Amino acid sequence: MIDCVPATAWHGGLYFSFMPYIVTFLPSDRSGPVPAGTRVSDAAALLNETDLHLECGGKGTCGRCEIDLVRGSVKKAGRVMSSGRAGDPARLLACQCTVIGDAVFSVVPERAGEARTLSLGNDIAAIDPALLPSAKDISPVIQTVSLRVKEPCAGAGDSDLLRLERAFSETCGAEQLRCGRDMLCSLPGALRAKDGLVTVRVKRDPGHAEIVSVEAGAAAEKQIGIACDIGTTTISLHCVDLAGGPVLASRSDYNAQIRRGADVITRIEYAGNGKRRAEMRSLVLATINGLIDTALDELEMPADNIFNVAVAGNTTMVHLLLGLPAQGIRESPYVPVVNAPGIMTAAETGIRANPAAAVSIAPGVGSYVGGDITSGLLTTPIIDDDKNISLFMDIGTNGEIVIGNAEFLLAAACSAGPSFEGSGIKCGMRAAAGAIESFETDAAMEKVRLGVIGGGKPKGICGSGLISLLGELYSKGLVDRSGRIADGVPASRVKKIEGTKGLVLVKSAGGHGGSEIVITEADIENLVRTKAAIYAACDLMLSNIGLTFESIAHVFIAGGFGRFIDVEKAVRIGMLPDIPRSRFSYLGNSSLTGATLALLSKARRDQLRAIAKRMTYVDLSSDSRYMDAYVAALFLPHTDLARFPSTGR
Amino acid sequence: MIDCVPATAWHGGLYFSFMPYIVTFLPSDRSGPVPAGTRVSDAAALLNETDLHLECGGKGTCGRCEIDLVRGSVKKAGRVMSSGRAGDPARLLACQCTVIGDAVFSVVPERAGEARTLSLGNDIAAIDPALLPSAKDISPVIQTVSLRVKEPCAGAGDSDLLRLERAFSETCGAEQLRCGRDMLCSLPGALRAKDGLVTVRVKRDPGHAEIVSVEAGAAAEKQIGIACDIGTTTISLHCVDLAGGPVLASRSDYNAQIRRGADVITRIEYAGNGKRRAEMRSLVLATINGLIDTALDELEMPADNIFNVAVAGNTTMVHLLLGLPAQGIRESPYVPVVNAPGIMTAAETGIRANPAAAVSIAPGVGSYVGGDITSGLLTTPIIDDDKNISLFMDIGTNGEIVIGNAEFLLAAACSAGPSFEGSGIKCGMRAAAGAIESFETDAAMEKVRLGVIGGGKPKGICGSGLISLLGELYSKGLVDRSGRIADGVPASRVKKIEGTKGLVLVKSAGGHGGSEIVITEADIENLVRTKAAIYAACDLMLSNIGLTFESIAHVFIAGGFGRFIDVEKAVRIGMLPDIPRSRFSYLGNSSLTGATLALLSKARRDQLRAIAKRMTYVDLSSDSRYMDAYVAALFLPHTDLARFPSTGR
Repeated sequence: MIDCVPATAWHGGLYFSFMPYIVTFLPSDRSGPVPAGTRVSDAAALLNETDLHLECGGKGTCGRCEIDLVRGSVKKAGRVMSSGRAGDPARLLACQCTVIGDAVFSVVPERAGEARTLSLGNDIAAIDPALLPSAKDISPVIQTVSLRVKEPCAGAGDSDLLRLERAFSETCGAEQLRCGRDMLCSLPGALRAKDGLVTVRVKRDPGHAEIVSVEAGAAAEKQIGIACDIGTTTISLHCVDLAGGPVLASRSDYNAQIRRGADVITRIEYAGNGKRRAEMRSLVLATINGLIDTALDELEMPADNIFNVAVAGNTTMVHLLLGLPAQGIRESPYVPVVNAPGIMTAAETGIRANPAAAVSIAPGVGSYVGGDITSGLLTTPIIDDDKNISLFMDIGTNGEIVIGNAEFLLAAACSAGPSFEGSGIKCGMRAAAGAIESFETDAAMEKVRLGVIGGGKPKGICGSGLISLLGELYSKGLVDRSGRIADGVPASRVKKIEGTKGLVLVKSAGGHGGSEIVITEADIENLVRTKAAIYAACDLMLSNIGLTFESIAHVFIAGGFGRFIDVEKAVRIGMLPDIPRSRFSYLGNSSLTGATLALLSKARRDQLRAIAKRMTYVDLSSDSRYMDAYVAALFLPHTDLARFPSTGR
Repeated sequence: MIDCVPATAWHGGLYFSFMPYIVTFLPSDRSGPVPAGTRVSDAAALLNETDLHLECGGKGTCGRCEIDLVRGSVKKAGRVMSSGRAGDPARLLACQCTVIGDAVFSVVPERAGEARTLSLGNDIAAIDPALLPSAKDISPVIQTVSLRVKEPCAGAGDSDLLRLERAFSETCGAEQLRCGRDMLCSLPGALRAKDGLVTVRVKRDPGHAEIVSVEAGAAAEKQIGIACDIGTTTISLHCVDLAGGPVLASRSDYNAQIRRGADVITRIEYAGNGKRRAEMRSLVLATINGLIDTALDELEMPADNIFNVAVAGNTTMVHLLLGLPAQGIRESPYVPVVNAPGIMTAAETGIRANPAAAVSIAPGVGSYVGGDITSGLLTTPIIDDDKNISLFMDIGTNGEIVIGNAEFLLAAACSAGPSFEGSGIKCGMRAAAGAIESFETDAAMEKVRLGVIGGGKPKGICGSGLISLLGELYSKGLVDRSGRIADGVPASRVKKIEGTKGLVLVKSAGGHGGSEIVITEADIENLVRTKAAIYAACDLMLSNIGLTFESIAHVFIAGGFGRFIDVEKAVRIGMLPDIPRSRFSYLGNSSLTGATLALLSKARRDQLRAIAKRMTYVDLSSDSRYMDAYVAALFLPHTDLARFPSTGR
């Protein structure tokens, strides 16, 4: 190792400080020139090295961007670090080193693998038919109308557009409609290809009515729209039949932005300049458009036939999707650029669809209560309930809580962390095939019963599995109140992993069979923090308005846990309050369901705007009692056992 | 010369029919590979050889694309034509030959030069102040508003957009305004740069209201808009102060599409496929944007500051500008794609301005009565006159005639040809510095007096000069009734030119001095055809509704003749009817003036639409009497001298 050599060095007698060097990443073998002085993590981004992740946004704290310097030198904190002799690489954090010469790096396999459990989800989630609009109320932003346009009469010389407008007003009533150059370019061809039979797409938006496209022939039997929930950790979407509302295909995947930060704050910090804002935008679009591509492939539908998209996401996700500066969200007084971007075009947003497609973006309330929450509320009876007060909680990477009824809506947010989405948990995964979704055991762990989505070999644990697991381990005395693995656990099930203690849930089959599945004390600590943040937020919100959990008529739980939630176990670990179980309803991904309703119906879009307008945001972070409530909840089920009378073991 | 060899030949034993060959054009030396089988004229377009012109659109009739084959072979009508020995090139029409091997061509200089008299015009035309809107009526599509936006309060968390909307509604009244991604991206930066002082651009269009941009700081003192007349031959524009309306800079130039056809029919035929439509679009945009660039350079104004553009052009020019298929215009039943494209963005149209700028396109009536005519009528009192019937004639490459008053408007069109714009006339030029605009002589041509625009050496003759010249030559007996140069003309003034007889108006000074200016019998034939087409159209229109020229109270003459028109001479040659001279008014480029009014005022844009709606198009080409009237007018002043009692020599 050579140390203490100034970073800008003499090479062959010439001063090369801005000369590009060749940097290579293994095992992907992505290689190319990067300017001297580039951060190694930025070099990875430059060369599209996707195996490297910066969950902390490049601050050097998460350790996820560990790499081995196989050949060459880098500069780290003013000093030159070199690889040793062959076979003796130096392990470094890519975000803390800069390029000072040609170099070869190897991405640390377990680090790369960790964020790579990117299994596509494509279970079709059924939507409660009672929520869907009736046939006559279906009203996407862009409607498809088939028209028969008359041939021009000799002498009259009526323009193509005039005849189209006449046919339109005969079918749909008179209306002044704008039209753009692209539509006009295709108009004469479309009118003449099928004897005047054309399909027009008409966009209606408050203050705007436009024919966005015209095609020859009658409309396809199926018109499909896309509803998309953009979560910090997970992105999910439905392809929806615009005639009847059923979901034809669903997809979900981790948000590719994860590699630039696990939470919204880190991502906002990362996206601090225009170039990085553009990078973050292209990352989220890569995930969304990738999901759209595979879903439309399955439906054999070209993206150009998609004219309606509805999107819901938290305020930061919407800002990053649109490439808007998001700094205001994380700095006092916590001001977003926009809460209600309204309806944009697919071309503007970059979402894969016909460029003229309408992308309706669910309106948010403020920096920490976004369109995912207003969308979620659309799926609940809370907003119309004039008798009871209910609680809505959406547990994602951020936890959002709404208390209210037809008269008032109070919203608050807390940082829950992505553990219930499988992120930050050693064997965590999204609720997809192979995920353990329920867990039962005896105290000796001799009879372990797993519920696995899809039934095959387990690959990991999803949110509902983690709740079931933690509840079961705690109930059976395998985990103590502070979340530590109990001494009584059979030694064959306990193992040291990365400096923490792990409990083996599924033993490795050896060879090419299934791999070992464990839960570590670090994982349990993450889960306990998450449930504590949520419980404390609900607790404080209620006491602020003089209510207790007992006075809540219904608790609606939203989140990407899985297909169901084991309420009993969730109460047992203190995530949900100890009230009669019949008051709980699990909504699944309510943001996605809400986006689907907004996709289908103008009344729902209007309702969304009304919800956003009448919701009041309560800032818990400025309330000193929040930290007390949180710390008190950092036990299983809680410091104050009197709050959970039904859970005594 | 090798003849009769099949065009696809064996070269070195290999069949090379799709191999690219190297084609070179001299004297420009533009050179590059083109696929075998390419038309030589298309090869020229491919290699950006701008010296080659296809006024007939490549039909082989205009002869303007003559070239010399200096080296190599081409195929012509199935036969191979080769260059002879050095110094013996073969003269060919580029549009009639295809490439079959490497070849070098030389563009015939006089052909290239002919269409190259592209002098920029930048005289500022004054607009009658009585036409301009008063200060309070000024209302461009996009208005500029300076606002002071409040800082966000802690706790409220009102978004940037919400605070901007509040400031806007305090200043301008409440209104629901859309906004796009670009505007949102710049919003947070703009709000924070100058303590909340911002300039917003608000677009209002029936059925659409939008904030299209926001910038930091107060609005610039001068807001400038662009009004543009897109003629078949000439494109002219004004840069207009949007506050007061005075014209700050003017520019005009020949429409670069001329090289693909002199008239609209040829251009429509040329633009028969998507690629050529795109070429025609880029040609007209090159002229428009070139004019905008030089005008804005003079005003030291970046194009990004231009938010309002108003355009007027005939129906074909608007179709080619927008890249719309224009075939319907020239085929029965003569149906354009659109008459009233309304308001588009600069980005859509390709016009140089802020991409979000509003481009307001004057509505037309039909295939042969376009927005240039509705615009022109805006500048006349005809549309409000409830007492008298007036006549409006716009004499460009197409001649359009409108007869009417406040109650009715009848419009007709005739193909006049571009001769009054200086095109198709040997020494013709646009009304720019160096153009002869008036001509006087004695019968012996010993005392010739010329009026030259700008006063310097004459370079050519513009429209008003041609009217003055022909009237004078006819009056003095130097040209006879059929347009032939009289036998009495001094021999020193007569000369053979390109197979026709020319009359020398300005003798060559020899050496590097001024060059010879002539008018040929072919030129006179063109002029007589033009004036006959116009006179016959007016004549027939009037007789169709039972009127005579005598019953017309006012005749408004529009066109790019020059700064004035010699009405007396115009009557003498039979272009205008022989009625009291006081009834004539010359409007100049009324289409451009009308576009300027539409740029400045919403009331004028509404009026434009109303004019287009109530105008009725009369198709003269289907009226068999039109040809009779036209033939009768092919004499000076007319076959029927009784129609021109005041002109007896």
